[in-house]
Amino acid sequence: MEKRPGGRSARVRDAVRQATLAELAAHGYRGLTVDNVATRSGVHKTSVYRRWTNADGLIADALELARNEPWPIPDTGSVDDDLRRIVRLVRHGFADPDEGPVARAFVAAAVQSDDAARALHEFFAARHDQSAVVVRRGVERGELPAGTDATEVIRVAVAPVYYRLFVTHEPVRDRDADRAADAALAAARAGIL
Amino acid sequence: MEKRPGGRSARVRDAVRQATLAELAAHGYRGLTVDNVATRSGVHKTSVYRRWTNADGLIADALELARNEPWPIPDTGSVDDDLRRIVRLVRHGFADPDEGPVARAFVAAAVQSDDAARALHEFFAARHDQSAVVVRRGVERGELPAGTDATEVIRVAVAPVYYRLFVTHEPVRDRDADRAADAALAAARAGIL
Repeated sequence: MEKRPGGRSARVRDAVRQATLAELAAHGYRGLTVDNVATRSGVHKTSVYRRWTNADGLIADALELARNEPWPIPDTGSVDDDLRRIVRLVRHGFADPDEGPVARAFVAAAVQSDDAARALHEFFAARHDQSAVVVRRGVERGELPAGTDATEVIRVAVAPVYYRLFVTHEPVRDRDADRAADAALAAARAGIL
Repeated sequence: MEKRPGGRSARVRDAVRQATLAELAAHGYRGLTVDNVATRSGVHKTSVYRRWTNADGLIADALELARNEPWPIPDTGSVDDDLRRIVRLVRHGFADPDEGPVARAFVAAAVQSDDAARALHEFFAARHDQSAVVVRRGVERGELPAGTDATEVIRVAVAPVYYRLFVTHEPVRDRDADRAADAALAAARAGIL
């Protein structure tokens, strides 16, 4: 696979990725097919099959690209504010009319396919790493105890939002997001995380 | 629909429910069909179609029955121990070779179908209610602040287990479950929940 960023291969990969995201937004994981992505992207069907094989290959590649995109990590000088912003960012991402359906489709794909689950696992490992910096800064500023597990603070902070969205199917308001962030911080301050 | 517990209708309903659970365990939500449930249950296909309509109707009914089943709510005299037991019960349920695949299939169904999502929502509302009693007892014993939102403590305690299982696809060990319970209690004690 050609790696040169501006090359034809990179443009093809980007076109296929954009088409994958658009198909996921429109039809969800169950409607994602190589044929539809080929048609939408204008890339020849045999090329898409050769390089991505099937719907799971398309998902894995889209997630790999998403994983490497920078995420707007806040840096307000307060771990409380930073963590609240991160959890709200998660909530607003899923509520967004463009982003939301795609993000939901990734989660739905991963509960149906082991390949998609592996790709989503890698995506979240990267996302946790990126986000954990706000917790580490809080530790350095003395806002949280030394030895706090930064990644676990992120997990505990965002988990209630995902729980409501994908398990109990309850609404998520900003106050639910804030409370989840505050709960994670209280647990960290109590030395639990 | 005949409601008499020992009646023919109740027996048919139970046979269909058992067949639904077995089909979910074997083939997941995507493989759940009225035809297969009819064959496995020995109930005539037209009867299954008439009463349950489709896969989502089968799921909704199985969840309604599951919702009304008693759950072994612990009562150790300590809210810390009770909550840890509840979170471990969740973790062990999903790890169980019989129960696990069915429980996973319900979650997977609900991210693909609005009808299944509504049924799962009702199921969790009941489950939260049942579990919240351990938090309320803790408040009565003075282990947690008055005014603690018992249901929110349950959500925050179990959410990290579901997050690992269905979102990040990370392993869940007993220590992860315990830590999630402890984090929710620390947040409650800090007055966040």
